[in-house]
Amino acid sequence: MEHSIAVLLHNIRSAHNVGSIFRTSDAVGVGKVYLTGYTPKPIDRFGRVQKELAKTALGAEVSIPWEHATSPITFIARLRKEGWLVVGVEQKTYAYDYRTFMLKGPTLFVFGNEVRGLSRSLCATCDAFIEIPMRGAMIRHANHPRRTRLGKESLNVSVAAGIVLFGVISGQRF
Amino acid sequence: MEHSIAVLLHNIRSAHNVGSIFRTSDAVGVGKVYLTGYTPKPIDRFGRVQKELAKTALGAEVSIPWEHATSPITFIARLRKEGWLVVGVEQKTYAYDYRTFMLKGPTLFVFGNEVRGLSRSLCATCDAFIEIPMRGAMIRHANHPRRTRLGKESLNVSVAAGIVLFGVISGQRF
Repeated sequence: MEHSIAVLLHNIRSAHNVGSIFRTSDAVGVGKVYLTGYTPKPIDRFGRVQKELAKTALGAEVSIPWEHATSPITFIARLRKEGWLVVGVEQKTYAYDYRTFMLKGPTLFVFGNEVRGLSRSLCATCDAFIEIPMRGAMIRHANHPRRTRLGKESLNVSVAAGIVLFGVISGQRF
Repeated sequence: MEHSIAVLLHNIRSAHNVGSIFRTSDAVGVGKVYLTGYTPKPIDRFGRVQKELAKTALGAEVSIPWEHATSPITFIARLRKEGWLVVGVEQKTYAYDYRTFMLKGPTLFVFGNEVRGLSRSLCATCDAFIEIPMRGAMIRHANHPRRTRLGKESLNVSVAAGIVLFGVISGQRF
């Protein structure tokens, strides 16, 4: 059975990332994109098209329904009442590996700011968390042979969204 | 057994995409990134840092070895001689679904231009192709009700690279 999927983008800074996530959402079959906080919108409050977003979304910002509110709680409360599961995408000790996550009903995936991720208060509204396991190799820093440095333990948010959404959809199909 | 992975980026226009792929490569454990054609380099021929690339790579452009040549054939011929499999990432009727692709030895993944993908001559140098299956829904175009339009049958190249590389690595681990 195919379950509905929606995406919530809170305080994403880059229009490039938002446009790219719209494009991915279209390829995957996401039903709706929720934009909250200062996340750029396809059309601003003066009715003008956000060019950078349109350039990366390539029309997906028109074909996928989207809605904006300042607070993500508005949407999360509404969807939860309608039986949706709210899943934060965030590296946490108690997060599920995205490859083991199975859709069991309509699911909202929540993505946060490029640098800070999901805020503590936004995390408090999530039912569960999934993460993408990184290679996490300790690399000895050339200039500080005594120190080790953790490999880049993060991905661009639009890349992370692509991996999670395709991974979840694939799990559903297999 | 863990097999070596490398990435070749030919004629990628956007420094943002190249930086993002460096970052993903670091998270996945790619051993080397080959840059060919007009793909932006972390450091230009005058020794100056490419700022837009550095901003999205977040240090991965320093931790992962990279090499540049005008023609991709230079690297492909060298790697093939050393026993590498050359896999083009491109939507083709005879491409493998990336989810069924298994690493069986050192593998080079080749990505092409954001709009045109891999050229015919570059495709001719590949041993195999993998693709990311899209939802492919036919969407009736609002302004042309008689015509149907294929859903966005593509992804941003850095998103596609993320999905392919994480998918391939996951297949190896499971």
